Amino acid sequence: MRIGVLTSGGDCPGLNAVIRSVVHRGVVDHGDEVIGFRDGWKGLLECDYRELDLDAVSGILARGGTILGSSRVQPAHLRDGVQRARQHLADLGLDAVIPIGGEGTLKAARMLSDAGLPIVGVPKTIDNDISATDVTFGFDTAVGVATEALDRLKTTAESHQRVLIVEVMGRHTGWIALHSGMAAGAHAIVVPERPFDVTELAELVGKRFAAGKRFAIVVVAEGAKPRPGTMEFDEGGKDVYGHERFAGVARQLAVELEQRLGKEARPVILGHVQRGGTPTAYDRVLATRFGWHAVEAVHDGAFGMMTTLRGTDITLVPLAEAVEHLKTVPPARYVEAECVL
Amino acid sequence: MRIGVLTSGGDCPGLNAVIRSVVHRGVVDHGDEVIGFRDGWKGLLECDYRELDLDAVSGILARGGTILGSSRVQPAHLRDGVQRARQHLADLGLDAVIPIGGEGTLKAARMLSDAGLPIVGVPKTIDNDISATDVTFGFDTAVGVATEALDRLKTTAESHQRVLIVEVMGRHTGWIALHSGMAAGAHAIVVPERPFDVTELAELVGKRFAAGKRFAIVVVAEGAKPRPGTMEFDEGGKDVYGHERFAGVARQLAVELEQRLGKEARPVILGHVQRGGTPTAYDRVLATRFGWHAVEAVHDGAFGMMTTLRGTDITLVPLAEAVEHLKTVPPARYVEAECVL
Amino acid sequence: MRIGVLTSGGDCPGLNAVIRSVVHRGVVDHGDEVIGFRDGWKGLLECDYRELDLDAVSGILARGGTILGSSRVQPAHLRDGVQRARQHLADLGLDAVIPIGGEGTLKAARMLSDAGLPIVGVPKTIDNDISATDVTFGFDTAVGVATEALDRLKTTAESHQRVLIVEVMGRHTGWIALHSGMAAGAHAIVVPERPFDVTELAELVGKRFAAGKRFAIVVVAEGAKPRPGTMEFDEGGKDVYGHERFAGVARQLAVELEQRLGKEARPVILGHVQRGGTPTAYDRVLATRFGWHAVEAVHDGAFGMMTTLRGTDITLVPLAEAVEHLKTVPPARYVEAECVL
Amino acid sequence: MRIGVLTSGGDCPGLNAVIRSVVHRGVVDHGDEVIGFRDGWKGLLECDYRELDLDAVSGILARGGTILGSSRVQPAHLRDGVQRARQHLADLGLDAVIPIGGEGTLKAARMLSDAGLPIVGVPKTIDNDISATDVTFGFDTAVGVATEALDRLKTTAESHQRVLIVEVMGRHTGWIALHSGMAAGAHAIVVPERPFDVTELAELVGKRFAAGKRFAIVVVAEGAKPRPGTMEFDEGGKDVYGHERFAGVARQLAVELEQRLGKEARPVILGHVQRGGTPTAYDRVLATRFGWHAVEAVHDGAFGMMTTLRGTDITLVPLAEAVEHLKTVPPARYVEAECVL
Repeated sequence: MRIGVLTSGGDCPGLNAVIRSVVHRGVVDHGDEVIGFRDGWKGLLECDYRELDLDAVSGILARGGTILGSSRVQPAHLRDGVQRARQHLADLGLDAVIPIGGEGTLKAARMLSDAGLPIVGVPKTIDNDISATDVTFGFDTAVGVATEALDRLKTTAESHQRVLIVEVMGRHTGWIALHSGMAAGAHAIVVPERPFDVTELAELVGKRFAAGKRFAIVVVAEGAKPRPGTMEFDEGGKDVYGHERFAGVARQLAVELEQRLGKEARPVILGHVQRGGTPTAYDRVLATRFGWHAVEAVHDGAFGMMTTLRGTDITLVPLAEAVEHLKTVPPARYVEAECVL
Repeated sequence: MRIGVLTSGGDCPGLNAVIRSVVHRGVVDHGDEVIGFRDGWKGLLECDYRELDLDAVSGILARGGTILGSSRVQPAHLRDGVQRARQHLADLGLDAVIPIGGEGTLKAARMLSDAGLPIVGVPKTIDNDISATDVTFGFDTAVGVATEALDRLKTTAESHQRVLIVEVMGRHTGWIALHSGMAAGAHAIVVPERPFDVTELAELVGKRFAAGKRFAIVVVAEGAKPRPGTMEFDEGGKDVYGHERFAGVARQLAVELEQRLGKEARPVILGHVQRGGTPTAYDRVLATRFGWHAVEAVHDGAFGMMTTLRGTDITLVPLAEAVEHLKTVPPARYVEAECVL
Repeated sequence: MRIGVLTSGGDCPGLNAVIRSVVHRGVVDHGDEVIGFRDGWKGLLECDYRELDLDAVSGILARGGTILGSSRVQPAHLRDGVQRARQHLADLGLDAVIPIGGEGTLKAARMLSDAGLPIVGVPKTIDNDISATDVTFGFDTAVGVATEALDRLKTTAESHQRVLIVEVMGRHTGWIALHSGMAAGAHAIVVPERPFDVTELAELVGKRFAAGKRFAIVVVAEGAKPRPGTMEFDEGGKDVYGHERFAGVARQLAVELEQRLGKEARPVILGHVQRGGTPTAYDRVLATRFGWHAVEAVHDGAFGMMTTLRGTDITLVPLAEAVEHLKTVPPARYVEAECVL
Repeated sequence: MRIGVLTSGGDCPGLNAVIRSVVHRGVVDHGDEVIGFRDGWKGLLECDYRELDLDAVSGILARGGTILGSSRVQPAHLRDGVQRARQHLADLGLDAVIPIGGEGTLKAARMLSDAGLPIVGVPKTIDNDISATDVTFGFDTAVGVATEALDRLKTTAESHQRVLIVEVMGRHTGWIALHSGMAAGAHAIVVPERPFDVTELAELVGKRFAAGKRFAIVVVAEGAKPRPGTMEFDEGGKDVYGHERFAGVARQLAVELEQRLGKEARPVILGHVQRGGTPTAYDRVLATRFGWHAVEAVHDGAFGMMTTLRGTDITLVPLAEAVEHLKTVPPARYVEAECVL
């Protein structure tokens, strides 16, 4: 068979491991031919691709990023391109396309699948917010990077007797905040699923100082927001430099907590380091298994499906289900984490 | 309530995280008192313990080892001590004991539970071989340490044009070998579940060199053995220094492969580094959740049970089931890994 | 002898290693008694201290922060306290004080020494800007943390086809920027010693894209500033939240480069992670040697001196010399680094 | 100019950083052409090489190993090949050769230089035993890897109440043992420069247990030997499998200490992980500077010289001096380290 693969959306540790696994399973075990489209859907629409043989994927297992490049494409743009995509598949003699991507990519994959194209999706998001799978690769690496940073920040917070407000990734869900906060023993964890009451937060941190502790670490997901009416909050838009990206919950929370507690409070924004670099062993194994099973799905003709992890098994679910709703942090998990406050 | 906790068996990253979590959940949230028995079951039998308050567990979340110490105790010895254990529980006013340990510990826990003692077990093994749970804490750290070592060894193998035979932990099961081997892109993975044929192995590695590659990495679990008749094999016992521990599959395999392939082959035995040191974020979260849910089980009176991970949930299973059989690597997983050979 | 030790100024990996070494060398080898003043000079002025025996320093070698706490004290305040300090030394029967700190601390040490107090200084700064020593501990750790972050950021920059402007520590000198930038292969390095011309910088980065590269990494020390007249620049003061710390060169440079290059440019501010957490082996060895030699200096009566590294030797220099001028990046080093642009 | 570069001898983190730096400085700044000989001197003798342009060295800065390959060649073989080497230089139009290697390589370099070939050497050894330079790249990485392993082993030794004898690299000198042992707070450090008295060692470790400690870590360089008459010692040759490499000081010392102390003692042999994988930031900077200055030396016609680090400066020394004697651990350094016993 001839299989096309592409990576779409934000950077995520493990993308190269999937690509490599598709090539290994396809080429070595099935005698397939594999090509890689460049820069996501764009490569499919513009028929921009490269052959992927064993040499092409040699040494990439542990490398961050994606050797195929990535880009974001407008759904409308892709919708207009269905006919073109179909034609390119025919021209290239492709039997299947394996797109690796997050929510947007998988929605696009579903649309193309509904239009009759032979698609098997592989989910990808460091945010871990795809409901059809227990975990997505990239998440473990992001949590690991954030936890290591938190470990380091603890000693510096302690030496300077400070509150540190550490902003981690998670625009819509708090998984990275929850896991890195639990792993590092953060004293409060703030997630988008549950708007925070700054008064409660200040009391919580204040109690810690009252008990004789010299510092506190608050982990906050970038998408967290205060409960309406509890605190003035600039939701962003543009900052003074005209950049949307500079507004941030950590900085505003630091100002607020400093005023309320009379303790030095500093924001730390971990940023892009969470999504780059070499994947953890966990993510490499998961990504490799996803790639392997995606090839199997192609050979089984299981189109319109997506690979998922359920317990310790890799299974398939319809793309339609996969993107139905966001996997948010359930209240029970939040309660568990409170034990570490 | 008053709860006793103890750690038994081999060192495992995450033990301290469980202890800390038991104290946090118990003391802070339930108003419990917690004591820790020293050196495993020995502490219970000899009534050797310390109070565990919040200060006692401050700063231990990320630390390897166990602040309570550990030891191995003969089952017979423990059986004779049931009455004493019961008495000590009464003397100390304990409502429950939470033993954290591997197969041996959990069997002992079951025996005490059957004798009517209020026990909630927490499984622990870096080998990941307890069937009642998807994963045990410590495993991810061990795989991570082994993978990092394999990453390093690859460049040195390549520069010296060698075969490296890397022995990882796993006396009865090949989980660490499988996962670290997949994560690092090993060219062959040898596990106890499937006795190896050295001729096949030599062919596999030989093909790699024939294809122009300059090195090969073979990951082998310490408990792996050759298929009878395929290779002379010293199963160990004592070595020339009278120590059982020096016989090893990696060294014998290196000799054999070197002779068959005519390539320099070197054994590397990773050893104890795999079970020491700071746990990964994954293991800290899992250990923390286990501790939390063990306390809940105590408060629910769910004695004779053990915490387990099922998918993303922590649930309870009877201790009786937990230790029924070893969780071995299923053939399907082994097939997946072959794609990386 | 009786020796007092204190840590003053900002957090720096290796402080605990010095403290431990002073105690080991003093107590074990010389039979000294060692006490530690709490929170820097404040502890000396307020006679707030603790005994430091072997148990007190057990397990701290690899820990970041300082078990003694730290604080900043106004020079004037300390000047007024000389008499009190002298009295406390007499009261405590101390033969010497070993302050561990940066430029401010060493100036204070010199002042106290000039006033006749028995002082041996140990230099400390992650910025590496003390001229009397080849290197200070903490610097290697800071460079290592920054380099690891840069390694991670490279793959994400490449996947997103971006310019990343990464701000590292260094208010007055560019040592961390220079070394981490060289180590990570940054495409431009901007240091305080040499005000940058944004036009030149844009050209340099632009040439890279023109040559077909998909990303660029610019490392900039937090204290770097544009050459006057080349770019509007907000030197800080207060930001919109009333906090001095939010103004930053990386953010302003990102805006400017994005406009000039028409490429997405993003700032990443590494911040406090650079100064916290476990020290590298290099820093632990250097810190241990400094502590050892400080005790020797005390026993030799070499007061008013400071430990320094010269080549591979630890020697002593007068405190007076030690703080005379800042060690800036010499132009020759900057030229070397340009080869990596 | 046209410059040839080659890497010879054992793997060492930083080799690729030197190669990259030679190409960057040569090609970008001087307009040179650079070629790389494959597999060390062998490539020069057999005229086996590849062109090295900017693309060829892209992305190799942080990679372990050497993209040029390495091998060992007999001095006699090389001596016979001087004429051939000269001819190949002429054929290829080379103005200079930069060999990167350890003692053997530098001796060969000197021999070729004495024969009139235009050579500038770059020293390389993880052992740090070249006397003409303060430090060699690779050493810091090796020490870092060993220290991280020691950090991990500490917790496991403590949990199991064991003596761990950890064997690190260092056939003739104890630098890695000294630095990793100091960095990790080992309780005894054994180096080749000073044959050990096993009775003293047992007393030292025994005192620790007598003082109530539960474990001990002994770091021993692979080349360490007992003082004659203090202990039976198998210097190696062949082991039971006919392999020279399996005899080892750590294993023999473990047996001896276990018998004398009545405590479980286990050997751990760190092995090849110390010389593979990504270099530390320190090593990358040093290697980059060496490469840069080697190119400068070529352009200055400073043949027969070798780059060295003196304090913070890179300077040149005659190859003749460089290999005169081994840089051993001076007694003073050993005394310093005893403070951590």
